[in-house]
Amino acid sequence: MSLVLALNAGSSSLKISLFRRSAEDAANPVLLLSSSISSIFGPQTKFKFNPVAHQNRLLNEEVNSIRDHASAFTHFLDRLKKEVSIDRTDIKHVAHRVVHGGDYTGPVIISEESYHYIERLADLAPLHNGPALSVIKITIKALPHAKSIAFFDSAFHKHLPTHVATYAINQQIAKERGLRKYGFHGLSYAFILRAVAAQLRKAPDTLNIIALHIGSGASMCAIRNGQSIDTTMGLTPLSGLPGATRAGDVDASLIFHYTSHSPARMSHDPGLSREVRVTEAEDILNFKSGWKALTGTTDFKEVTEKADLSTLADPMSRATDPNTLAFRILLDRILHYAGAYYLVLRGDVDAIVFAGGVGERSVELRHAIGEAVACLGFAAIDKTKNSQIKDDDGIIVDIGKGDKGKRMLVCHTNEQLEMARECSLAAEFWP
Amino acid sequence: MSLVLALNAGSSSLKISLFRRSAEDAANPVLLLSSSISSIFGPQTKFKFNPVAHQNRLLNEEVNSIRDHASAFTHFLDRLKKEVSIDRTDIKHVAHRVVHGGDYTGPVIISEESYHYIERLADLAPLHNGPALSVIKITIKALPHAKSIAFFDSAFHKHLPTHVATYAINQQIAKERGLRKYGFHGLSYAFILRAVAAQLRKAPDTLNIIALHIGSGASMCAIRNGQSIDTTMGLTPLSGLPGATRAGDVDASLIFHYTSHSPARMSHDPGLSREVRVTEAEDILNFKSGWKALTGTTDFKEVTEKADLSTLADPMSRATDPNTLAFRILLDRILHYAGAYYLVLRGDVDAIVFAGGVGERSVELRHAIGEAVACLGFAAIDKTKNSQIKDDDGIIVDIGKGDKGKRMLVCHTNEQLEMARECSLAAEFWP
Repeated sequence: MSLVLALNAGSSSLKISLFRRSAEDAANPVLLLSSSISSIFGPQTKFKFNPVAHQNRLLNEEVNSIRDHASAFTHFLDRLKKEVSIDRTDIKHVAHRVVHGGDYTGPVIISEESYHYIERLADLAPLHNGPALSVIKITIKALPHAKSIAFFDSAFHKHLPTHVATYAINQQIAKERGLRKYGFHGLSYAFILRAVAAQLRKAPDTLNIIALHIGSGASMCAIRNGQSIDTTMGLTPLSGLPGATRAGDVDASLIFHYTSHSPARMSHDPGLSREVRVTEAEDILNFKSGWKALTGTTDFKEVTEKADLSTLADPMSRATDPNTLAFRILLDRILHYAGAYYLVLRGDVDAIVFAGGVGERSVELRHAIGEAVACLGFAAIDKTKNSQIKDDDGIIVDIGKGDKGKRMLVCHTNEQLEMARECSLAAEFWP
Repeated sequence: MSLVLALNAGSSSLKISLFRRSAEDAANPVLLLSSSISSIFGPQTKFKFNPVAHQNRLLNEEVNSIRDHASAFTHFLDRLKKEVSIDRTDIKHVAHRVVHGGDYTGPVIISEESYHYIERLADLAPLHNGPALSVIKITIKALPHAKSIAFFDSAFHKHLPTHVATYAINQQIAKERGLRKYGFHGLSYAFILRAVAAQLRKAPDTLNIIALHIGSGASMCAIRNGQSIDTTMGLTPLSGLPGATRAGDVDASLIFHYTSHSPARMSHDPGLSREVRVTEAEDILNFKSGWKALTGTTDFKEVTEKADLSTLADPMSRATDPNTLAFRILLDRILHYAGAYYLVLRGDVDAIVFAGGVGERSVELRHAIGEAVACLGFAAIDKTKNSQIKDDDGIIVDIGKGDKGKRMLVCHTNEQLEMARECSLAAEFWP
């Protein structure tokens, strides 16, 4: 039995899926169990454990002994042995989701060299690569006989045209420091691409879609003939759409005004203007902004429930209620990129695809987007289909009315499965 | 005779137009002469003087005595007396273009109070309000009996919906410090709106257009029922489109990586990461970026001539030639916003309007944009009309083929005339 363990480390969470791979059907690894640890650094760390074939072994418990990603992973290994008798030595392949891959355009077996490269990349994405690095460290220690393989969220965007990936800045400095658009959420986009192609019975390399991965982190991607031609995130995941705690696009000089010591308006007076460090800037713009900063909650469902959606009828609305504003800001920025990507694809678009926690669950957001993009020839949204999506509806749900117009689809994306599949299919990992 | 002097101060230039206003036809002030001073701080300051009715008095000379905006203006007043016998005491109204108006939504007579308010706004736009402030100072001194009136580039955008103007950041800090989208180039957009409405014989408040003001500074505006519903510039003129020396949209953390002391990739290591001040950030992103940084020239005509435009046929191009890249980056970002604003207007668009130095002169850029937006229902560009636009063709030229489709227009925009007109029409300035 060949096992593939897929690990997805967030800043305070760890998602784990264990798959069985068979050489005969390498493209379809089978999920054996899933597990997740959340609030890792909080007082009430939650551990979930869900073995598909042993529902009597399902766990949902608080664990006090978990203090970091390393102890979270060790706890998982203990449970794996105790609950379903799988020994850590049975695991020979571990797939790690790593956000920033820099110049890596495909998965990489972790060696001393590649580890240090990824470590250096943490400079470009410290908030994002850090957790994965600590999990890679513990797996190498805990599973010394397994192959650890890094899968990068940026790799899917390797085909970005140079004029899209290049910022209008000094190119010598840009090259020396790797300052260009990378783009992220690539494992999700790769999954979406394949799933939609299968649904529409098209070859992936003939598919043109506008994909939305909207969760607490949110981005969009224009996919042309199966390749990323543009995406909203850039050098780091900061730019583009706002997220639960992320500002998204802002004027690049905003952060200096935000952190100024000046009592009211900021100042360029050297006596008043403060110097700002990247750590402070990234902390504010990645963790202290977004709809949390506007409304007090990271839960977009709560935002939506409190928002006054009747204001959507007024395009020039001056509504200042925080929840209404948060909903409309996300909607506005999504539509901004939807229009942009429609033109990037010259109107030749097979579908708009909603994915991610908010994309898969927000009936209201999808409805509002659908109303707006109807003028571009997309199918009107079927209210019943849109409001009755269930987790077991299959990977793709078509929420368009009838068969006319470009498609409006919802995709239950699955980054761990995408990694397991890529891992399972790569001949070089199975000598 | 009522004279209105319109002053438009750039960082190293001063454009001056003198108009005659008649109470009977206040909406149409008549241009008496125009003058410009360029390279004010350079070794070879150029002075041009063009009295409409006295072409024998036309001047185009180098002036060594000009060292700053004040001496430039004094030189103009001397010439005005000497060449066309207009005494400074004849001028009773001076209109000043000021970039950043903060909370001002209309023109303001300069008083001690308003001067200090504009001065404080220079903190939000030091690179932009500074020159106007120094010109305001000298006019008050040199023309003590004239009314100085400030016209703001941000005022046109006063109707921006709150969800468009609001950044997804802490709103208490945002309000205290005025951190929101303001938008600029408003005098030009006001001129364009009126000119296009007249051309299409529609009331301005029923007109929907996507306006492009593309010069060494570049922006776009979506106008709905005569009001700005979105625009590319934000808190400052930095965000949005790239310009001759301006980066336009970048990941907000880029500047920290750009200025890092680290030898190669930047670092979050406190020992290596540098603190950055707003002055340094704004200097790099406003003055050391854009197509100058990419190609070495601020002249977009030169960029275009050297670019390989045959690569435009390849949407996934990996061309790295600097001129090709610079052309395509500007084109790509313009199309990005064109698609976005088409959707903002829900497809209900009367015209795309090209204005500004590059917008009015670049046959190639207009052609490339026209090819792309054809899929949105815009008229195909007529090659002959597009390539033969002359300065004396009238204010608006329709470059579309036939009468089908949404219009493709070129507008010879005129910020000084817009100010003179607004000044001339405002009853409160003519008691």
